[in-house]
Amino acid sequence: MVNEELLYEGKAKKIYRTNQENQLRVKYLDQLTALNGKRKDVCEGKGALTNTITSAIFEELNQKQFPTHFIKKTSKTEQLVEKLDMIPLEVVVRNVAAGSFATRFQLPDSPRFSTPIVEYYYKNDALDDPFINEDHIFYLQLVTKEELDCIREQALTLNHALLHYFSDLELDLIDFKLEFGYDHTRQIKLGDEISPDTCRLQDRHTKDSLDKDIYRKQTGNVVQAYQEISRRIQQKKETISHVSY
Amino acid sequence: MVNEELLYEGKAKKIYRTNQENQLRVKYLDQLTALNGKRKDVCEGKGALTNTITSAIFEELNQKQFPTHFIKKTSKTEQLVEKLDMIPLEVVVRNVAAGSFATRFQLPDSPRFSTPIVEYYYKNDALDDPFINEDHIFYLQLVTKEELDCIREQALTLNHALLHYFSDLELDLIDFKLEFGYDHTRQIKLGDEISPDTCRLQDRHTKDSLDKDIYRKQTGNVVQAYQEISRRIQQKKETISHVSY
Repeated sequence: MVNEELLYEGKAKKIYRTNQENQLRVKYLDQLTALNGKRKDVCEGKGALTNTITSAIFEELNQKQFPTHFIKKTSKTEQLVEKLDMIPLEVVVRNVAAGSFATRFQLPDSPRFSTPIVEYYYKNDALDDPFINEDHIFYLQLVTKEELDCIREQALTLNHALLHYFSDLELDLIDFKLEFGYDHTRQIKLGDEISPDTCRLQDRHTKDSLDKDIYRKQTGNVVQAYQEISRRIQQKKETISHVSY
Repeated sequence: MVNEELLYEGKAKKIYRTNQENQLRVKYLDQLTALNGKRKDVCEGKGALTNTITSAIFEELNQKQFPTHFIKKTSKTEQLVEKLDMIPLEVVVRNVAAGSFATRFQLPDSPRFSTPIVEYYYKNDALDDPFINEDHIFYLQLVTKEELDCIREQALTLNHALLHYFSDLELDLIDFKLEFGYDHTRQIKLGDEISPDTCRLQDRHTKDSLDKDIYRKQTGNVVQAYQEISRRIQQKKETISHVSY
């Protein structure tokens, strides 16, 4: 694709303008970062795996009429998405204590919550993405009360759908991060990605992490873990298409 | 008072059982601490000043039918209060960016909010009183949703009343911390204290701090500042009693 202008280069993807005003091309990179970008490595094949996984999940969400930016996967490492005016908010949904939650309350990584917990972080590198509350969100004018209620509801609906989706893959969804934005009609839609870069996933039986924590904690081969997720998704797709014949 | 058992010794006060089952005696100490108790000093006269100030404010709140634990001031450094089952929650109301809020968002200490901001901190020394959101509060089972709504409403009502109270003293109320508890009928009432130990107060004209920040930042004589607040409260009382004759 010629004449495509690079709009944004993130930690794990590049985003390009296309010849369609409301569409963008996302290219997933073979890059992994941790500690807010302070650690950085190249892992061959990681971009293609992340693109395959997030594309499969967004296809499923689109089929279920969930409002997302995803249009289609266009190559091994690329996808076409609707252009959103992104809200600088990271929405975290937690089903099990882990990560910064376990640190905050000095809990072992284990208790499953009876009700999922939602947290908001202000997406701002200079401030190190601080944890914020609803009053802070309104002070920063990130969204209105009605919009935040809508985002929270979408996040919880998604959690419900993703718990089922991953359960079919024999995976426990520990927690995940979402980002939302406005489309050109100002409707709020899910943007960014859903992949082992943004979700904590555990094998139901072995309890092994199959996500970016492997890279954060340097406990194994992250590409192998992503391959395993991708394999299970492919297997599920084949089972479903087999069933429908 | 003989035979009174010490129930609790905090950073700035001691609490004793009395011969009345639902009443406690609070003794304000000449002690000042900062950095969650890591810095500690004795300031002669500070206990009496804090007791005088918080007693005057709680008397005013009681007169306005606001539900508090305060019964009466019983000596220079002591007061009698209703025994509450305290909720381990610090409720912070902010009118102007300062303290940890200014740090979190890297703001200068100055912008006044169009709407006050409420924050909750989990009162837990071992965890260093972490900032938490509503979902965390329900996870920790500190209070129910209805109780939290009631606490938030009380905090905002109090903010309104205190802004006026301090305004009469030519003081700007920057922010303050509240603690609530249940009385023996399970009604939620305001406990703890309201003083320059728990409020940030600024002289309206000079913009000088007249609160514990003087001690935190080592910028002046904290006892003199508390004396000034106490003097203005006394002056206000005399003006009011003069007017009513």
